[in-house]
Amino acid sequence: MVEQKSPHHVVIVGGGFGGLYAAEALGSAPVKVTLIDKRNFHLFQPLLYQVATGSLSPADISSPLRLVLRRNKNTQVLLEEVTDIDSQQQKVILKNGEINYDTLIIATGVSHHYFGNEHWQDIAPGLKTIEDALSIRRKIFLAFEAAEKERDREKRQAWLTFVIVGGGPTGVELAGAIAEIAHGSLKKDFRHIDTTEAKILLLEGLDRILPPYPPELSAQAEASLTKLGVQVETGTLVTDINDNIVTVRQGENLSQISAKTILWAAGVKASAMGKVLQERTNAELDRAGRVIVEPDLSIPENPHIFVIGDLANFPHQGDKPLPGIAPVAMQEGEYVAKLIQAKLKGDVLPPFRYKDYGKLAVIGQNKAVVDLGFLQVSGFLAWLMWVFAHIYFLIEFDNKLIVMLQWGWNYFTRGRGARLITGEDSLGSEVIDLQEKARETVEV
Amino acid sequence: MVEQKSPHHVVIVGGGFGGLYAAEALGSAPVKVTLIDKRNFHLFQPLLYQVATGSLSPADISSPLRLVLRRNKNTQVLLEEVTDIDSQQQKVILKNGEINYDTLIIATGVSHHYFGNEHWQDIAPGLKTIEDALSIRRKIFLAFEAAEKERDREKRQAWLTFVIVGGGPTGVELAGAIAEIAHGSLKKDFRHIDTTEAKILLLEGLDRILPPYPPELSAQAEASLTKLGVQVETGTLVTDINDNIVTVRQGENLSQISAKTILWAAGVKASAMGKVLQERTNAELDRAGRVIVEPDLSIPENPHIFVIGDLANFPHQGDKPLPGIAPVAMQEGEYVAKLIQAKLKGDVLPPFRYKDYGKLAVIGQNKAVVDLGFLQVSGFLAWLMWVFAHIYFLIEFDNKLIVMLQWGWNYFTRGRGARLITGEDSLGSEVIDLQEKARETVEV
Repeated sequence: MVEQKSPHHVVIVGGGFGGLYAAEALGSAPVKVTLIDKRNFHLFQPLLYQVATGSLSPADISSPLRLVLRRNKNTQVLLEEVTDIDSQQQKVILKNGEINYDTLIIATGVSHHYFGNEHWQDIAPGLKTIEDALSIRRKIFLAFEAAEKERDREKRQAWLTFVIVGGGPTGVELAGAIAEIAHGSLKKDFRHIDTTEAKILLLEGLDRILPPYPPELSAQAEASLTKLGVQVETGTLVTDINDNIVTVRQGENLSQISAKTILWAAGVKASAMGKVLQERTNAELDRAGRVIVEPDLSIPENPHIFVIGDLANFPHQGDKPLPGIAPVAMQEGEYVAKLIQAKLKGDVLPPFRYKDYGKLAVIGQNKAVVDLGFLQVSGFLAWLMWVFAHIYFLIEFDNKLIVMLQWGWNYFTRGRGARLITGEDSLGSEVIDLQEKARETVEV
Repeated sequence: MVEQKSPHHVVIVGGGFGGLYAAEALGSAPVKVTLIDKRNFHLFQPLLYQVATGSLSPADISSPLRLVLRRNKNTQVLLEEVTDIDSQQQKVILKNGEINYDTLIIATGVSHHYFGNEHWQDIAPGLKTIEDALSIRRKIFLAFEAAEKERDREKRQAWLTFVIVGGGPTGVELAGAIAEIAHGSLKKDFRHIDTTEAKILLLEGLDRILPPYPPELSAQAEASLTKLGVQVETGTLVTDINDNIVTVRQGENLSQISAKTILWAAGVKASAMGKVLQERTNAELDRAGRVIVEPDLSIPENPHIFVIGDLANFPHQGDKPLPGIAPVAMQEGEYVAKLIQAKLKGDVLPPFRYKDYGKLAVIGQNKAVVDLGFLQVSGFLAWLMWVFAHIYFLIEFDNKLIVMLQWGWNYFTRGRGARLITGEDSLGSEVIDLQEKARETVEV
């Protein structure tokens, strides 16, 4: 009798770009795959700012993990949260249960970083999850509603002031979209305010926005934002956020901005799994808490544990670690999937190399900047490239269709159909109470 | 010098079908209009069950009120909640402020009615708001996730049992859609459960489902539901809901159903404005708390206050009050708008008459029942009529496009792309805790 060995079990934690691409690449491999995520869907994060600004619906940029992986008969999806790892026993500890692995891939990503000012989180939310996006959407559209009802000039201006902290791609995209809302889609909707008087401030600590891009592209992005109505302030550090006042330092000067809507796009820190790995395996972390990985994306002394995506610090290429962007995560996921299969056959693979096809950031409905390395593009052509790249990488075909249609529609109508104020606070009562409004007859 | 009179001010409370159609019909009238709603959007409620079952996104069936009414220069929209009415001073009291009216239209609709068992609300949610729909969506899809992880046969069957209380259109539509999820879209997505083993029970107290329809259509609807996999139980009264057990009485027999997902579609009661009107104006209410209106939809002794839509009980046509459905609300809104304009000119109008164009209810992706009075249709043709009627009445053109595309896509793929589990409880941890699960090794 021939002994039947149970297949090699690959456990993947996290269904973002890294984890999902690893799982997909293992779909026909002679292994058993378990993908664990605490959400039941993959989120196309590059378009999350469009949910936050009312252009797209959550479902447009989300794909149920089970649906994406349904054809992979060797793969199961588990809606669970990983709380710990036992690298000796080769198992992960779940909130409800445990699970054994032969190979473990950790791809749990990053969350917001407030650099020691975690109490700013409630006042200045960041944008990482669907819930973040819906709460930012509520904040933005409630601000216009509150301004419409406010008769005090100064308070009204504070409702119409939007501060975005951080001039990276997310900050640039948010600022551009809010400017388009104020100057475009909402222009005719109010009777007591002029939404084009809204002030949108983009604050960046360094001397130019989009720091990872070539300086010419940064300059072009700033010019485009200014034209859209965004006030770009570089060399500007936020020193305090309090009571709807942002205190900033420019050189030696401190000043205050009165704003009711403050959004955080300034930094990320590693998810909790980084710390778990450090404790359980002596993996080394960088200052942001990311795990420093080997040239094959495994961690030292643990060739069966891989870290990929935003959680990984890959220092073996170029003079800086690879950036935390979707293409890096995808390629890392695919590399590890290949490596596992090679090892099972007794083969070796060369170390991981990231192939850089370029970077892109969108500024408004017509403008973007694209850096292909050998070529820099900005303006409408760059925007078209951005559109097609994003449609192309959307996971599901029906999402592609819906998003294309929605974009086409928004493009020609400047519409924002998804600007619903939902959730418990849809009346914004608590924010309006801040004004200490007495019962007054509303002027009509 | 000619004295300039400020225009007649019409205040409309509620942006549902009644309020919105009244506002639209007053768009070019020589009056000032204020539409007050505590939500910033109009909700196309007939399709809400499709959000609850993961076919459509909230934004697909919602239209920002400001956007719909932006071209009506005489109209302002106010995101506010009305707490009281002063009929002597002719003003409505808001949560923040007050507002004077010359004519008042109350169209605040209805909410769920648990007939004295309000504590059932948490266990068996009803379907009236976007938040209701998202929480039902979470409940349904979490149940399948929990079943996938549950190894105890009985507990697993409880997770796979769905009880819908109430055999009206909403109950029928929910039951049909859940059956399609279990037997269609989810069939290939799980590894440890067979979703086609799910039990979907539709409970109705009377002797047939869809009681307002002709008996032949009720019978056809029941046959279609049974074919889809729904177990229809008529003559069945719910006597208790407790600890995920539904106790029912059929004739003299009591029995218990073990089910983790219980949905309420059994009754509605008037919104709080009914009581306010009763206290402030001596308006009469019926047993469900609806306001009994005059032949012109005003309330007794208050010719300047109108009640329309689901909140109104109009007893002057036929032997029963008009049903609480969208077409009645729309026609009432349009009638009151006409009446106001006639009165301003010193004209009189005949009393309100509802023109019944028919009733329709959908059963599944291919089947519906339509009662046109002179003609009863069921099956695929009825479904096509249902599709076109709903697309036609969707408020905005871009919603029409998106919903048509989404339906077309779902029709051919049996897909349910919007089945996201969102909100705080996306892991369903608290429901899973109900199983008193110890830390166990999950079988793979």
